[in-house]
Amino acid sequence: MPTFKITLAYDGTDFVGWQRQANGPSIQGLLEEALRELDGRVVIVNGAGRTDAGVHALGQVASCSLERAVSPDVLVRALNARLPSGVRALSAVEARPDFHARFDARAKIYRYRIWNAAVLDPFERRYAWHLPGPLDVDAMEAAASFLEGRHDFAGFQASGGGTHTTERTIRTSVVSRTGALVVYEVAGDGFLRHMVRTIVGTLVDVGRGRWPAEHVRGVLTAADRTLAGPTAPAEGLFLVSVEYGDL
Amino acid sequence: MPTFKITLAYDGTDFVGWQRQANGPSIQGLLEEALRELDGRVVIVNGAGRTDAGVHALGQVASCSLERAVSPDVLVRALNARLPSGVRALSAVEARPDFHARFDARAKIYRYRIWNAAVLDPFERRYAWHLPGPLDVDAMEAAASFLEGRHDFAGFQASGGGTHTTERTIRTSVVSRTGALVVYEVAGDGFLRHMVRTIVGTLVDVGRGRWPAEHVRGVLTAADRTLAGPTAPAEGLFLVSVEYGDL
Repeated sequence: MPTFKITLAYDGTDFVGWQRQANGPSIQGLLEEALRELDGRVVIVNGAGRTDAGVHALGQVASCSLERAVSPDVLVRALNARLPSGVRALSAVEARPDFHARFDARAKIYRYRIWNAAVLDPFERRYAWHLPGPLDVDAMEAAASFLEGRHDFAGFQASGGGTHTTERTIRTSVVSRTGALVVYEVAGDGFLRHMVRTIVGTLVDVGRGRWPAEHVRGVLTAADRTLAGPTAPAEGLFLVSVEYGDL
Repeated sequence: MPTFKITLAYDGTDFVGWQRQANGPSIQGLLEEALRELDGRVVIVNGAGRTDAGVHALGQVASCSLERAVSPDVLVRALNARLPSGVRALSAVEARPDFHARFDARAKIYRYRIWNAAVLDPFERRYAWHLPGPLDVDAMEAAASFLEGRHDFAGFQASGGGTHTTERTIRTSVVSRTGALVVYEVAGDGFLRHMVRTIVGTLVDVGRGRWPAEHVRGVLTAADRTLAGPTAPAEGLFLVSVEYGDL
């Protein structure tokens, strides 16, 4: 009964998100169906990050245990033969029997892409937030840096997020520009519901001059969601990778 | 009655190609409808390259004449307000009254993208040809270089292409690899129907070891389509840019 760590990439455009739901195809649901066919019984798949509808992944990680003794290579090929082309298993490795993609994750890296030009590149329309007006990226970068370290991120959590603790440690939080593309990259030990998208919405408010960079410090201190900016749209967000200790 | 040169980008996935057709939405058709709304009368749009269904453009050029005296900036905004997000007007400039995007084009640059790895990146599924097996890119590059210069390209033309002359001058014809991505870029004074895709199919046959690089010389000399490789799929092809003299 081998347990696997599977690394996945997906274009989130056509899915209701990671989690199995009644209203449409989910990544978890597609994986569980493919694995049930392969293993001949119901298989439970756990994901490191429960990405929302429209959010993409370059390196999501899933865990599952199978009855059949298949090799990781056979598992990758069997999954890709059954999954739609918008979801791909990139690799698989065998892990210890109690490995759990979410509980064992030590860090996650997310990237958020903004297209900052008058006209949205048609090839970016599903993969970036289009903001045609001026953005002060230096101010956004200064604001982003205030998020590094251990903080209470309750102010950046979706209402109704309701986890036990809202403290998280952010290792890197940086904004950069390459031509029209403004990228926010954030790495941390964990993220609250809608946390990255709320951070981005707040950074964009700073970039538009609505608030000074220091405003993000106030949101952290007050831990008040109403002080943060709007939730940035899902299509700009990518789960880049997930880090683990020993498997 | 100003005449315009309009530069366009589009994701060809959801269209029947450049040319207006009865079986679905075309780029030309969408542009003509948007311009008819703007100008209040039927407008004819000419395109530099008549891209096939599924072929993309980064810098297609179209020409048209309007009754209304609009500025190029207003024209770009009016088009983008009416076009679907998969088609964008990038810029417009006023041209001389008899400017014609196709007849006045001096050169065109096309790019063809191949994803050469076991697993196709899900974000490349509409924008590259997936070839999982080994490809000898050095042999492909050698074969590509034989196409530079003035040649009769009848052997690389779709059957029924039927233009007056099949001689064309190719300025650059190069293959390069960056990781899993193999890119063919070709610039020339004109291209026959399916010419780039037939060249790519032939280069891939060389890369797979079916023929030596010199085979492309034989296809040129014999001018026989049956000696060339298969027509590569449309989704990997991009019209990059079109060059003109004085407007």
